[in-house]
Amino acid sequence: MTTARAYAATSPTDDLVPTTIERRDVGAHDVLIDIAYAGVCHSDIHTVRGEWGPIKYPQVVGHEIVGTVAEVGSDVTRHKVGDRVGVGCMVNSCRECENCKAGMENYCLKGNTGTYTAVDRDGTITQGGYSTSIVVVEDFVLSVPESIPYEAAAPLLCAGITTYSPLAHWNAGPGKKVAVVGMGGLGHMAVKIAAAMGAEVTVLSQSLNKQDDGLRFGAEHYYATSDAGTFEKLANTFDLIINTVSAPVDMQQYLSLLRLDGTIVNVGAPPEPLPVSVFALMGNRRSFASSGIGSIGETQEMLDFCAEHNIAPEIELIDAAEINTAYERVLKSDVRYRFVIDAATI
Amino acid sequence: MTTARAYAATSPTDDLVPTTIERRDVGAHDVLIDIAYAGVCHSDIHTVRGEWGPIKYPQVVGHEIVGTVAEVGSDVTRHKVGDRVGVGCMVNSCRECENCKAGMENYCLKGNTGTYTAVDRDGTITQGGYSTSIVVVEDFVLSVPESIPYEAAAPLLCAGITTYSPLAHWNAGPGKKVAVVGMGGLGHMAVKIAAAMGAEVTVLSQSLNKQDDGLRFGAEHYYATSDAGTFEKLANTFDLIINTVSAPVDMQQYLSLLRLDGTIVNVGAPPEPLPVSVFALMGNRRSFASSGIGSIGETQEMLDFCAEHNIAPEIELIDAAEINTAYERVLKSDVRYRFVIDAATI
Repeated sequence: MTTARAYAATSPTDDLVPTTIERRDVGAHDVLIDIAYAGVCHSDIHTVRGEWGPIKYPQVVGHEIVGTVAEVGSDVTRHKVGDRVGVGCMVNSCRECENCKAGMENYCLKGNTGTYTAVDRDGTITQGGYSTSIVVVEDFVLSVPESIPYEAAAPLLCAGITTYSPLAHWNAGPGKKVAVVGMGGLGHMAVKIAAAMGAEVTVLSQSLNKQDDGLRFGAEHYYATSDAGTFEKLANTFDLIINTVSAPVDMQQYLSLLRLDGTIVNVGAPPEPLPVSVFALMGNRRSFASSGIGSIGETQEMLDFCAEHNIAPEIELIDAAEINTAYERVLKSDVRYRFVIDAATI
Repeated sequence: MTTARAYAATSPTDDLVPTTIERRDVGAHDVLIDIAYAGVCHSDIHTVRGEWGPIKYPQVVGHEIVGTVAEVGSDVTRHKVGDRVGVGCMVNSCRECENCKAGMENYCLKGNTGTYTAVDRDGTITQGGYSTSIVVVEDFVLSVPESIPYEAAAPLLCAGITTYSPLAHWNAGPGKKVAVVGMGGLGHMAVKIAAAMGAEVTVLSQSLNKQDDGLRFGAEHYYATSDAGTFEKLANTFDLIINTVSAPVDMQQYLSLLRLDGTIVNVGAPPEPLPVSVFALMGNRRSFASSGIGSIGETQEMLDFCAEHNIAPEIELIDAAEINTAYERVLKSDVRYRFVIDAATI
């Protein structure tokens, strides 16, 4: 067992506090990672506050993790001591279902093992990345190219793959018009990735406050959704819309923006079902879809793509003592565009 | 002008009655068709009863039309006198929008010209196929292979293309598991076409009443949706579901039946929006889509496909005097599987 320093939630309402946790012994297929940086995802906040259901406390969250390999098990072949690596939203899966066998572990039919709050194979509850180390089975550890700025790499493991996967799957690229709804942590990555893929990118944001940023990230157009004229002007325009807003939106308004065979993909999910008009889908043979993070294979592909295209998230680096303040700022959308914790300060 | 005999609705509540209507002179690009048979589609009933909005009376409906070319305009090249031809749900489109230029007239951005109740280019209201003749511009007239039984060909022009188009677009074929929800006019055609495409077809019907028919039409499996165990047993199974039921269904139940990257396509549309859970879409990266009839190109492809595979709708041939009784039977789902009017009796 390795003792790691960590920041943990102890109740749905109290601030996160410093603590220590035990990481399991390094098994034959395991990798021990000295964590360098951990991103702060809105999911972390929902989780520790019990908004996605009750959890056991104390709980360490964080599923955007980068660090350096400190030790490897006897059978590990994919990583070696000193490698720069990453861990995202999952640390295992059943490996036996149809989807796992197809290399789509994120859609494991038995449910993949989340990086935090999940029941691990040994019966313990998984503890996330706001910590100084973590032990993960090698197949779920990604190689992080050194050309990606170290402190900015962490958010790629969730915000990056969650937007890269649908953009790649639905063929964003040259000749395709892609709209990104929302310019937060996920949205700003969607803009950068879609632009790098060669698509013509439009941002649909509530206001024009972040327009300069959006254009700098690679968008060619930027519209305010608070302006009703936007929906009229952009009717039947897009091949693909990536909706990063997890609050409910009027789906009919956004569906009307899709051209023939266009698809809107929600990567955020409001708890309540959204009313969808079949007539809005029937016009232009539109599709409404959703996707959840990405497979390990896709995640590696995304990291290599970002390295090749010099793409990295925009971050605010914080000390661990600032986590609770950072949470409040996330809730006010007062972050451009992702907080990253320097694990050395934990 | 040509005078045609017809059966027309004169109010939302009265029976259809025999009458005569005028068909326009045959223009340079027009085809005059002596109608042989006209199918009875549920849409006809919704329309004449004003259930899809108010219409002008008298109105002749019917958009599943087959007949013989009686006269062609001076510039007509696609059809000649004596040819067996068909007309479906549309008789024109704007020809200028992006979708029309792409050969997808059914998704004309200005709205295609419906075979009935639409405003035609000359300002008149289009009158449908419960009639002895019709004049249609040649581009919207299909060639009906003579190997398809004449009286059974009519329903292909709506029920056939409405199911063929999504099956072809979403790649039903060998190795694909396709479910058809509902075994009515559209559903029975979906089963026959999907089976002929080589897919493994499952029927999901309220009861097992039509099971023998379903298996005879080419389905390999048949389940009752009234049995809750059906949804548990078939979870994560299908690549494609064609939902022919236009009444609202619990979308979450049907979405749960889709395997990785599966799509459910509604070809019926309830007037009210359907509640859709994004979580149900996110699992297995599912899509919810809809499609509306098919293009003229796809319709010709469908007719040729049906001829090649010896597929034809199951019909009950009726005299025109039986139309009103037939309507009542359609409303009670008491038809196997489509009524076709013998136009000689009009």
